[in-house]
Amino acid sequence: MGQHEFVPQIPYGTRDFLPKEASRKRAVEGALAHLFDSWGYDEVVTPTMEYLETLAVGAGNDLDQYMFKFFDKNNRILALRPDMTTPMARVAATRLKDSTTPMKLFYLTNVFRYEQAQTGRQCEFYQAGVELMGVSGPTADAEVIALAVEAMLKSGLKQFQIGLGQVDFINGVMAQSGLSQERQQQVKHAMLTRNLVGVDEILVNSGLSQEAQKVFKNIPLLHGRQDMLKQAYSMVANDISHKALDNLAEIYRLLESYGVSRYVVFDLGIIRDFDYYTGMVFEGYTPGLGFPICGGGRYDTMLSTFGMNCGATGFALGIERMLLALERQGIASIPSSKDVYIGWGSEKLVMAIAQGEKLRKSGQRVEIGLVAQTQAEAEASQKDKGYSKLVYVE
Amino acid sequence: MGQHEFVPQIPYGTRDFLPKEASRKRAVEGALAHLFDSWGYDEVVTPTMEYLETLAVGAGNDLDQYMFKFFDKNNRILALRPDMTTPMARVAATRLKDSTTPMKLFYLTNVFRYEQAQTGRQCEFYQAGVELMGVSGPTADAEVIALAVEAMLKSGLKQFQIGLGQVDFINGVMAQSGLSQERQQQVKHAMLTRNLVGVDEILVNSGLSQEAQKVFKNIPLLHGRQDMLKQAYSMVANDISHKALDNLAEIYRLLESYGVSRYVVFDLGIIRDFDYYTGMVFEGYTPGLGFPICGGGRYDTMLSTFGMNCGATGFALGIERMLLALERQGIASIPSSKDVYIGWGSEKLVMAIAQGEKLRKSGQRVEIGLVAQTQAEAEASQKDKGYSKLVYVE
Repeated sequence: MGQHEFVPQIPYGTRDFLPKEASRKRAVEGALAHLFDSWGYDEVVTPTMEYLETLAVGAGNDLDQYMFKFFDKNNRILALRPDMTTPMARVAATRLKDSTTPMKLFYLTNVFRYEQAQTGRQCEFYQAGVELMGVSGPTADAEVIALAVEAMLKSGLKQFQIGLGQVDFINGVMAQSGLSQERQQQVKHAMLTRNLVGVDEILVNSGLSQEAQKVFKNIPLLHGRQDMLKQAYSMVANDISHKALDNLAEIYRLLESYGVSRYVVFDLGIIRDFDYYTGMVFEGYTPGLGFPICGGGRYDTMLSTFGMNCGATGFALGIERMLLALERQGIASIPSSKDVYIGWGSEKLVMAIAQGEKLRKSGQRVEIGLVAQTQAEAEASQKDKGYSKLVYVE
Repeated sequence: MGQHEFVPQIPYGTRDFLPKEASRKRAVEGALAHLFDSWGYDEVVTPTMEYLETLAVGAGNDLDQYMFKFFDKNNRILALRPDMTTPMARVAATRLKDSTTPMKLFYLTNVFRYEQAQTGRQCEFYQAGVELMGVSGPTADAEVIALAVEAMLKSGLKQFQIGLGQVDFINGVMAQSGLSQERQQQVKHAMLTRNLVGVDEILVNSGLSQEAQKVFKNIPLLHGRQDMLKQAYSMVANDISHKALDNLAEIYRLLESYGVSRYVVFDLGIIRDFDYYTGMVFEGYTPGLGFPICGGGRYDTMLSTFGMNCGATGFALGIERMLLALERQGIASIPSSKDVYIGWGSEKLVMAIAQGEKLRKSGQRVEIGLVAQTQAEAEASQKDKGYSKLVYVE
């Protein structure tokens, strides 16, 4: 570097939160932590890195390639966690396995995925989420969805909608169709990326009857309120799909009790990007944001991989996406108040410090100048730094 | 894995914070964020990983080997940040370079060092810290030390002490001694690890006069209040060391104004583990903890490496060490209150949900049961989960 100025960059897909953004982040995270706590959820913090073999339990094949990997000094492969559900399941099934169920846990932290960065999709991003373990019925699913709605509201968001699906609806159709496993994966992948033309192409070459093809093509369009569920029920003729629809109807009834059903729309085409879901799945959307702001679902088999046989359900909310949505909807965050700037003339620092102590004790945000100033200089500093009041000690 | 139970482990030197610990962590971090804010400091959040060349600016040779390193997809070397001072300097000197100085920033996050893990020394650990940039005088140093004392007090700690030193005191002695650069580094390293026998051995073989050796041997013993400063002043005869002592006397005078000087003892043997310090350095100690709970100092040259010519001072506090100290001193944390458990009989969930909503709105922490229970079962759940009150809906 020598005499040259070194202009450092930050890695692809990462970002700095400057004061205003960091303050908004802290405000939203604080509100969410308080909400989860008030619903009886306990926080758990896990290591940023885990052994790859642990993370692979939940990641599925697709996600494995998106992990940041490195070696420890014994040449075991470590990776930065790509999501929190797997680490939380690990903690629940090992360190907390003797706790009373249901276990209600929450987290508020960062996760890492090596992917094409774009607005709202970074390689390092922050998530707030809950996991409710030990209950298989729709009661737990409804609580988690209701809590997701509350999380959106408590963050300050006004316009949003929850899309609610059930992986077994599609699984039932798949099982009945006789499509090969490979083709099934292709169809799922096309549906996940909402690539309807791709779905069509795969089906045309599938050898399925026109009628069976029509069912598949209709799935992404199965979007609506309770009457749509009836339509879907008559469209398919297998037990797995019918049970999935019954499950959704039951969850919806409970959401009415929570008073949040007006935010919920059924969307049977929802396929989440993790392989571990086994029941209801949901995603939260908000106008002007081209990706879900939150998402989750039921995952009843992951805990058994870690040696604990019980069902689980949960969701995660993207903090950056929430901040972006709030900004786009023009929802002002509560700015940190800047109350008093204390300036001081020559030799008056001691008195300025005493004043500062007093004002801080009364709950005010106070900055004390660090060099002696004239009153005019102190006024300029106060305005420059955005403090609402000046105290000048002379 | 097949039928076998998979018992996952976590990487060496990392840990899980289970609910009770995570709750204590959140409480301490919340108190610190509020404190820093009330003193006019703004939070900044930086990426967990940075390019190695950026981190190397502050790390020095020793620390480089302790970083967790890996490659990005363009084969550039990334590393998990081993401290926050370098990333904060990067942000200040680039993204915030047009802000009004002095710049007051804080952070609350995790850092990573691959080293021998032991109690209070993990490979991933959490730090709270502040950086005050743009002021070179002792006023800024005193504010930062006073804020460190407040941080200890606000965390709940009762017994602690700040050791205050000045790197130029030792630098002056070194420059005057005529020791080779290599020997100087050896002496510093032995002093850093408080290896007094090691210091002796290096000196015996150094060719220095007995008198010069005696000065070096005395440095680790220069520990005390203001009278010790006078003693040190007469012990050395070079300008650099004398100016360092004047600087400490001036900082101490300001700490008296802050009303915190009773927590501060001079300790001229303090050598911090980062190479970037250029002036006063300090460490906080608490009984029964064999390592500093906080530490910091002045670093006036790092910002210029990033293209911004101004002085800076700051400190960091170890969150895990604080939690450990509080526990060892028997200082109870404020436990998250568990107010009400709501149990419900068959078909009464809807009413239970309505009750829960009402109680949560009144500010209580409420858990609603997820299966129908008899009153006796609900009482058992309430006690098991530690809720102080039961509401049973039948």
